[in-house]
Amino acid sequence: MAGDLPVSPLAPAGFPDLPVVAGVWLSTVATGIKYQGRHDLLVCEVAEGTTVAGTFTKSKTCSAPVDWCKKAAAGGEARGLIVNAGNANAFTGKAGDQVVETCIAAVADQLACRPSRVFCASTGVIGEQLPADKIVSQIASAWGKMAATDAAQWQRAANAIMTTDTFAKGAGQTVKIGDADVHIAGIAKGSGMIAPDMATMLSFVFTDARLPASVMQNLLGPLVDQSFNSITVDSDTSTSDTVLLMATGAAAGQPTIKSHDDPQLDGFKAALDAIFKDLAQQIVRDGEGASKFISVRVAGAENDLAARRIALSIANSPLVKTAIAGEDANWGRIVMAVGKAGEMADRDKLTIRIGGHAVAENGVAVDGFNEAPVAAHMKNDEIDISVDVGIAAGQATVWTCDLTHGYISINADYRS
Amino acid sequence: MAGDLPVSPLAPAGFPDLPVVAGVWLSTVATGIKYQGRHDLLVCEVAEGTTVAGTFTKSKTCSAPVDWCKKAAAGGEARGLIVNAGNANAFTGKAGDQVVETCIAAVADQLACRPSRVFCASTGVIGEQLPADKIVSQIASAWGKMAATDAAQWQRAANAIMTTDTFAKGAGQTVKIGDADVHIAGIAKGSGMIAPDMATMLSFVFTDARLPASVMQNLLGPLVDQSFNSITVDSDTSTSDTVLLMATGAAAGQPTIKSHDDPQLDGFKAALDAIFKDLAQQIVRDGEGASKFISVRVAGAENDLAARRIALSIANSPLVKTAIAGEDANWGRIVMAVGKAGEMADRDKLTIRIGGHAVAENGVAVDGFNEAPVAAHMKNDEIDISVDVGIAAGQATVWTCDLTHGYISINADYRS
Repeated sequence: MAGDLPVSPLAPAGFPDLPVVAGVWLSTVATGIKYQGRHDLLVCEVAEGTTVAGTFTKSKTCSAPVDWCKKAAAGGEARGLIVNAGNANAFTGKAGDQVVETCIAAVADQLACRPSRVFCASTGVIGEQLPADKIVSQIASAWGKMAATDAAQWQRAANAIMTTDTFAKGAGQTVKIGDADVHIAGIAKGSGMIAPDMATMLSFVFTDARLPASVMQNLLGPLVDQSFNSITVDSDTSTSDTVLLMATGAAAGQPTIKSHDDPQLDGFKAALDAIFKDLAQQIVRDGEGASKFISVRVAGAENDLAARRIALSIANSPLVKTAIAGEDANWGRIVMAVGKAGEMADRDKLTIRIGGHAVAENGVAVDGFNEAPVAAHMKNDEIDISVDVGIAAGQATVWTCDLTHGYISINADYRS
Repeated sequence: MAGDLPVSPLAPAGFPDLPVVAGVWLSTVATGIKYQGRHDLLVCEVAEGTTVAGTFTKSKTCSAPVDWCKKAAAGGEARGLIVNAGNANAFTGKAGDQVVETCIAAVADQLACRPSRVFCASTGVIGEQLPADKIVSQIASAWGKMAATDAAQWQRAANAIMTTDTFAKGAGQTVKIGDADVHIAGIAKGSGMIAPDMATMLSFVFTDARLPASVMQNLLGPLVDQSFNSITVDSDTSTSDTVLLMATGAAAGQPTIKSHDDPQLDGFKAALDAIFKDLAQQIVRDGEGASKFISVRVAGAENDLAARRIALSIANSPLVKTAIAGEDANWGRIVMAVGKAGEMADRDKLTIRIGGHAVAENGVAVDGFNEAPVAAHMKNDEIDISVDVGIAAGQATVWTCDLTHGYISINADYRS
């Protein structure tokens, strides 16, 4: 599918110039499983002593690779990663579990490590058996081409994991921990929260910082909540969503970090936060059929979780999303979405702003409000919706895209 | 808006021939508030001693009429009903409450009854003040035209409450309670679960059975759960959804009924159940942009509530709905929707049938299954999806429609 669709109008200007992350080597090859004429398999080797943390889909019908990674992540150590695009190995029963074990064993042999230190992810069609032999037969040649992580290599890696994505997604930074320069580079793929034919959300973020696995897991949860768990394209949750954060420890001269609260980590945490949000927003910018990038900010909710639920209710509403596609500042649909969220709200305290302009205050339309600046804002590529519920201090921001004829065309007209 | 859109291809052949319900009188008039050249106000008088039960939206931003009806329904007695189309009187603050009180007072004066026995509903645009004077000034002339409920009068009533509906919705039956013939007639409107510009879900069902208010409320809850709470068009919940059931007691020769479990009510309950489901399914058949009517049956869930949640997760999934619009038997998207429902499911016990044909069993695609009959079923106007979760005995059925370019056109392209 990749390549059939025009590049999203919301795509960044180009792939970023990601830094070399010491202790990470990458390679990509073509398996021919689904795609012809492109690389569809990414293999990564990470240095001895690399720590890892993961966050996975909450789907009750998750894929075989997700089942594997959940168990492996509990060990906190990594040596390798293998990712294929074109077949999700989801809803493939016990045979699917066996395919995972076969592929993992082949990588573990190559690395002479325990299988539990090898991670995997698969994205693509659901319900078809993934042919393990087509992957295993490529492992040796993939390892033969392993290379350090320069900018071109990161871009190749990001390209290899794409399915319905219309552009490759990456983000990175170089920051200080103590006096040491540490590097962070991440890649991601996804263009619906899911389209089981092809799309799911995967992200792999690597750093050469040296961090215990317990610190990594403590870092990852809040980062994912504020980024990948704060985006929605179509409210559908993939069977395969996977975020892995790996730290090789290979940057020179680092201080010893024992807690995620260590103030020496402040700059690093801010950089990770920015990278996670950047990758998550790139997925929204590649949302199926998207013509507008929408930020939904909710304040004044009972607590932060209530704020996120209200924000997601707005961001998932087909009626809000179609109104924005039509450049219609239809705040009545926003009121509806606040009401259906089920969280505390007071009709007579609600304030709604569009593009910074108040359209409704204290539960009624703003008397004689000037429509012109709001109408002008609705013509932008980036739309800001802000709601104050008027109950307490809970707040959240989520990102989504509009719902257009393009979404219907991609998901109904192009048959699998 | 009504009249601008072509009649849904899923509409019934015509408006049904509804029976006269003794003790109910109807009248419709034009207020000119939103629509020109059509009746948009329905007024009903019901006999002294009429009992009433109601079910309302769970929205936290519900409309002023819903606030009124919730309180009034607690009294269990009714003498009148007034319904306007074109303005929802929602998100109109204290002024909106005042409009309700003014209109209710005018009807109560006409009937010489307590205001708390008068019910009201409004449907249409959100956030605009409803001009009470345009309603109050019509009350006397509306009462002057009050007439018994023959079939033509029911059809006029169903027409008067339409907004984006493309056809008028009614259902009725005549059944026995003891030796007495009792009559039931209901009308409804709605074409999205909501489109706050215009659409919401309202239904009013009248009978000349004689039933205590407590029996009425006990009857209503399960009926609504199996009908109006088992449909979805776009997952959006209206600020104004209202179902009222009124019983005049005016049919001759009825036995005294004290409990909703009285076996003399069995036939009556079955008729009410059929009428509620018929009206609810007509709303789905008029779903914005609908080209296919979809039944989703879930069995084998932990309990009936879990089954309904899984069924609604499937019915609300944009990816399932677009696949059906594209006549694509994409059962991978059904697996995804089962997984995201959050209810107990076992990947390796899941069975999925489309049009009665098993496409996946025990968590994997059916080996070598014949695609031809499934593909043929997908071309029908009516699509059956059946899922067995394989956990326990919980079951539920919900109804929805597909998601098409028509939905986008109605909600994005046609600006308010």
